[in-house]
Amino acid sequence: MENRRVVLASRPAGWVTEDNFRIESCPLPVAGQGEVLVRNLWLSLDPYMRGRMSDANSYVKGVDIGELMVGQTVGEVLDSRNEHFKKGDKVLTQLGWQLYGVAKELTKIERTDVPLSYCLGVLGMPGFTAYFGLKEIGQPKAGETVVVSAASGAVGSVVGQLARLWGCRAVGIAGGAQKCEYVTRELGFDACVDHKAGNLRRDLERACPKGVDVYFDNVGGEILDTLLARMNLFGRVVVCGTISDYNATEPYRVRNLRAILVNRLKMQGMIVFDWRARYGEALAALAGYLAQGKLKYRESVIEGLENAPAGLIGLLKGSNFGKQLVKLG
Amino acid sequence: MENRRVVLASRPAGWVTEDNFRIESCPLPVAGQGEVLVRNLWLSLDPYMRGRMSDANSYVKGVDIGELMVGQTVGEVLDSRNEHFKKGDKVLTQLGWQLYGVAKELTKIERTDVPLSYCLGVLGMPGFTAYFGLKEIGQPKAGETVVVSAASGAVGSVVGQLARLWGCRAVGIAGGAQKCEYVTRELGFDACVDHKAGNLRRDLERACPKGVDVYFDNVGGEILDTLLARMNLFGRVVVCGTISDYNATEPYRVRNLRAILVNRLKMQGMIVFDWRARYGEALAALAGYLAQGKLKYRESVIEGLENAPAGLIGLLKGSNFGKQLVKLG
Repeated sequence: MENRRVVLASRPAGWVTEDNFRIESCPLPVAGQGEVLVRNLWLSLDPYMRGRMSDANSYVKGVDIGELMVGQTVGEVLDSRNEHFKKGDKVLTQLGWQLYGVAKELTKIERTDVPLSYCLGVLGMPGFTAYFGLKEIGQPKAGETVVVSAASGAVGSVVGQLARLWGCRAVGIAGGAQKCEYVTRELGFDACVDHKAGNLRRDLERACPKGVDVYFDNVGGEILDTLLARMNLFGRVVVCGTISDYNATEPYRVRNLRAILVNRLKMQGMIVFDWRARYGEALAALAGYLAQGKLKYRESVIEGLENAPAGLIGLLKGSNFGKQLVKLG
Repeated sequence: MENRRVVLASRPAGWVTEDNFRIESCPLPVAGQGEVLVRNLWLSLDPYMRGRMSDANSYVKGVDIGELMVGQTVGEVLDSRNEHFKKGDKVLTQLGWQLYGVAKELTKIERTDVPLSYCLGVLGMPGFTAYFGLKEIGQPKAGETVVVSAASGAVGSVVGQLARLWGCRAVGIAGGAQKCEYVTRELGFDACVDHKAGNLRRDLERACPKGVDVYFDNVGGEILDTLLARMNLFGRVVVCGTISDYNATEPYRVRNLRAILVNRLKMQGMIVFDWRARYGEALAALAGYLAQGKLKYRESVIEGLENAPAGLIGLLKGSNFGKQLVKLG
């Protein structure tokens, strides 16, 4: 048996292209003492991966040229030299873009009531990001208006549904009529604004007649700038992603920062790792809503490791629909 | 007896000029039932006044053309038709740029251990702004580095001294060598960077070898942008003033906002009115430090109402030194 993996071939200048990746074959790794050999079944694709492909300063070190692309996976234990795991166990790992890997730090997935892949989405990092970002930084109060960008994505879709569950008006921003329809009809948001329609400011005004109390920002750039000018007194801006800047060679320059003073806004960065100690709380809440049918969740599945690069490129361009996964098994 | 007052003659486009003001004579007002006639002794000049001269959206309605310029004053009661005040009482009012006025909402000044004018500075709004902005939004921990811009001003000078009193490294930013020397030698800051010297980034790096944990921003614009890139993980930015934008016809566009995400910064707007209910706490703390000689305070005094416009223009250009007052009495 041999392993296959995707490495970073070159750093993107602007948009990511397939040339930035290389697929390699290599021998199957062997588990050492305390380690576990895992066959990856699902690879999660996430916007943060764009950051790792760059050598710009970020919250985690980037991937070096020739190194394995990082990523979270769900897999099955093939061989274990760790007393806590046995063959056949399902596990959550950080094994990256490859078919097999040897892991030391991994988590057993005990839950069998939902598909395994949910641990990479609604019951994993994206779900927890939505939960803590909205609850702890957004601090929404019943009756307030919550706006979230990338509303049909893995994080945004949960943010808006939680906002509704917690008594708020939920307004999404998404690219294209089809996504907007999904966000309102399927996910139950009160409204969704199509930022590709070219009337973001006016459309937001209509969708948020009482202004915006919480803006959960997954995109940064011009959409953030437009929202800043729509925030209510004491509004909160959850800064969770800057996808619009990921592929720009120069960062967008924000014009409406004075709104922070005028309206006493609080703007705060959100990275899910900071909430590690409370993952259990988020998992219990999200799994509960899911079991009660109160939380809808959609996956977008690509088959095969060789299609992962195209999958990430699509994700960065917004062509996915729901949580983007690569099926490896 | 007649009254004299300064009204807004026209709105400034960019920098304020003396043409934007007009001095008028008018009859002395008469106190009605429940009102008090006050002779103003001191008028406070503050950067926020530039905002009131504009019709742009702000946290308080602007002054209309032909209307009295707003401002806080300290005065003496000449005639009272309000049972809580009597002739000779010293009072804090919002009577604006005039020699006499009739007030309904005013505060008696009981304190006699400090000059009356202190109620407009270190023991008034600027002092309270520094206290709550630093304590509640900046939340400095001992050993952290606190940077404050407009460091020789009414707010900045208190921010840095409180930072030192609370166990932090205090670094000021001020315009010119003379102000910087005052900030370090007189006020006891650990360092002060001259933003006019043209090496803000490098000089900040030297003054803050461990990075910046709290940035108390009185100026906005390029200085804020530079600081964003120097903030430590979980740093706090207190957004208190945007004086650099007040006189620009186009707002400065901030480039380094991504730092909010990468370093999980919290950036929050601060207006002192929001803390009204706790003014007593700030007053007790600041008066205590002052009495113990732990808090230094400097005033910059202009004589005569007719010189108030030039005083505000100087303040906006940074030519004042310490709290800017107009002596009317």
